[in-house]
Amino acid sequence: MELNRNFQRLAPSYLFSGVGRKVAAFAEKHPDVELTRLGIGDVTLPLASPVVQALHRAADEMARPETFRGYGPEQGYPFARRAVRDQYARRGVLVEEEEIFLSDGAKSDLGGWMDLFGPDNVARVPDPGYPVYGDISLMAGHPVRFVQGTRENGFLPGPDGQDGDIIYLCSPGNPTGAVYTRAQLTAWVEYALERGAVILFDAAYEAFIRDDTLPRSIFEIEGARRCAVEIGSLSKSAGFTGLRFGYTVVPRQLECRGVRLRDLWLRRQSTKYNGVPYPVQRAAQAALSDAGRAACMQAVAYYRANAQTLRRALKGTGVFCCGGENSPYVWMQCPGGMDSWQFFDYLLERARIVGTPGAGFGPGGEGYFRLTGFGDKEATCAAAQRLRDAVLAAG
Amino acid sequence: MELNRNFQRLAPSYLFSGVGRKVAAFAEKHPDVELTRLGIGDVTLPLASPVVQALHRAADEMARPETFRGYGPEQGYPFARRAVRDQYARRGVLVEEEEIFLSDGAKSDLGGWMDLFGPDNVARVPDPGYPVYGDISLMAGHPVRFVQGTRENGFLPGPDGQDGDIIYLCSPGNPTGAVYTRAQLTAWVEYALERGAVILFDAAYEAFIRDDTLPRSIFEIEGARRCAVEIGSLSKSAGFTGLRFGYTVVPRQLECRGVRLRDLWLRRQSTKYNGVPYPVQRAAQAALSDAGRAACMQAVAYYRANAQTLRRALKGTGVFCCGGENSPYVWMQCPGGMDSWQFFDYLLERARIVGTPGAGFGPGGEGYFRLTGFGDKEATCAAAQRLRDAVLAAG
Repeated sequence: MELNRNFQRLAPSYLFSGVGRKVAAFAEKHPDVELTRLGIGDVTLPLASPVVQALHRAADEMARPETFRGYGPEQGYPFARRAVRDQYARRGVLVEEEEIFLSDGAKSDLGGWMDLFGPDNVARVPDPGYPVYGDISLMAGHPVRFVQGTRENGFLPGPDGQDGDIIYLCSPGNPTGAVYTRAQLTAWVEYALERGAVILFDAAYEAFIRDDTLPRSIFEIEGARRCAVEIGSLSKSAGFTGLRFGYTVVPRQLECRGVRLRDLWLRRQSTKYNGVPYPVQRAAQAALSDAGRAACMQAVAYYRANAQTLRRALKGTGVFCCGGENSPYVWMQCPGGMDSWQFFDYLLERARIVGTPGAGFGPGGEGYFRLTGFGDKEATCAAAQRLRDAVLAAG
Repeated sequence: MELNRNFQRLAPSYLFSGVGRKVAAFAEKHPDVELTRLGIGDVTLPLASPVVQALHRAADEMARPETFRGYGPEQGYPFARRAVRDQYARRGVLVEEEEIFLSDGAKSDLGGWMDLFGPDNVARVPDPGYPVYGDISLMAGHPVRFVQGTRENGFLPGPDGQDGDIIYLCSPGNPTGAVYTRAQLTAWVEYALERGAVILFDAAYEAFIRDDTLPRSIFEIEGARRCAVEIGSLSKSAGFTGLRFGYTVVPRQLECRGVRLRDLWLRRQSTKYNGVPYPVQRAAQAALSDAGRAACMQAVAYYRANAQTLRRALKGTGVFCCGGENSPYVWMQCPGGMDSWQFFDYLLERARIVGTPGAGFGPGGEGYFRLTGFGDKEATCAAAQRLRDAVLAAG
């Protein structure tokens, strides 16, 4: 037995365990001090009422022989796939039911796509970026080259002339909150079409975009149906991090050397996956209904307003920041020349705020810091003032 | 971009679509004839009441800010892992909480294990057997060699002296319903320990075992903790095919060249998976509680009794059959020298019974046929008599 040696290429991730350890040590030293947790990347508001009602109805259906459901269709129930399709249609993006594959979330889908590609393909991974992109590529044996986000390009790097076969794009970005413009995404689509590359477009945060000129789907870009796959999720848009619902859209036109990737993905999913729980598919349908969307968008607006509060607090302090306008994330430069972990300690000690060191998102994140809007409104407002004071004192 | 060429090694599976097409054609020709579907591999009884109540309670928890749950622990909530651990303990098998990884089912877990092994490992796949074992191995690039089930070995093949690195074992077996004895599993464990092979033990049907002398877990066998992983599921034991809950037990002692497979699996799962929905984990906890098990075992007994009815109907007809005693499946030789599809047509036309052609489970299944106990009791009893008549007429 030979193990997959590519696991040796993975660096252990100490990001959140490191944060946890430091927070625990602080709490022990200062048992009476209340911390504001702005490092959290998880939703905190409860599920919307239409979603909860759908869960109850589905549970009752599963209790009666006439309405019980066992194995469902491999791609997902038509009612749920149609709900995703209609969500796209409302924004003028036409995707077909057969192009939509439901899943338990973006991590599973991204990971699953590694099965479709030969190991020699070069993966282009945003740095800073969601660590999963690099890790799944390394596990599968791909050479990994960073696409460098910088202050100069607003953490929205474009094609850099280097080779690439698998292109990860995330917009609005995690951790940066930066959103690609139509022109910037067009450049990536043209690059992919020219090279025969495949874009894996992570749209997990699209619901946070309120600027109508910004694209919410890669399929708003001409030619994307021939080079891109889009991965979506209800985790952040409808609070489904504990319910698990995502989807991948694989356009019919997406081919590599005459092979339709939709057919390969269907083969992969029907062999290695058994579908989303029936109650969760009903919950997703409810979240995407008119009443559900209205309720969910209130939560999205709440989180975004928190992020805007943090962003405003940094105004005039002289530190660079991005995100927070069309995203739950604010990405800031650490003041006073501090590195990510130094600023983590500083902010914890001085402002009683827990954030996330940017270095945890790749080498390009060193010297930066992520704050999120997923906390409580009043606590975030109070923390924003302490953040501003701390940044000014450090500058 | 180069695609994974191993997909070309996969044979398209026409088994269930072929069955569906033939049944539809029959129904069109004979609109008034009622068919009995004994081909189905899915549960039909509704969820047990404690499970439904748990789903309702979890939905209510998700509706309130104080009790809402977002991302859960990567391996699963302690309450659910402990429920699995306690289920093992009741049978005298000691597994630790940290050795249990919850998932959405056996297909995902089996598929995920392919990530851990280098491509040159030889996969030993039971023939006839669950087609997923071969497909996931081929996709990952492994050489695949069958382990041959035959009438002579009662469809319980042992080690055959050939090489093997990844050993798939399923007991009670699908499609054969045959159950390995302690001595037979011991031979496999000794083989694996000697060769440094890893056994992937699929225990999806263990709840159907009523003969106390038969092992329900590979970990009842001495030495298995050093060479085996066990994959379990509530799909058939608690009717969770539409709810999705499974688990993999990776013993601490399982190592390859000094690397603990538990650690690799944790890395794989935390990178490519986000956990089981919270309500489903609560449902699983309920299914594994005293009240839940009592209710679920009634359904298991119902399905098994159906299988026994079918098995009894074949008694004295002269055709070989196995399974049906400790399994929901009955595996029978086709009478009169018919091949699998000929017998399918014959049984459909003559007895109005839909079964599953054995050839769909691998070349070794040709000339055999699978019937299942997942149908309605009265319909199964009536069909059993028609089955017997048809077999006698064909012999």
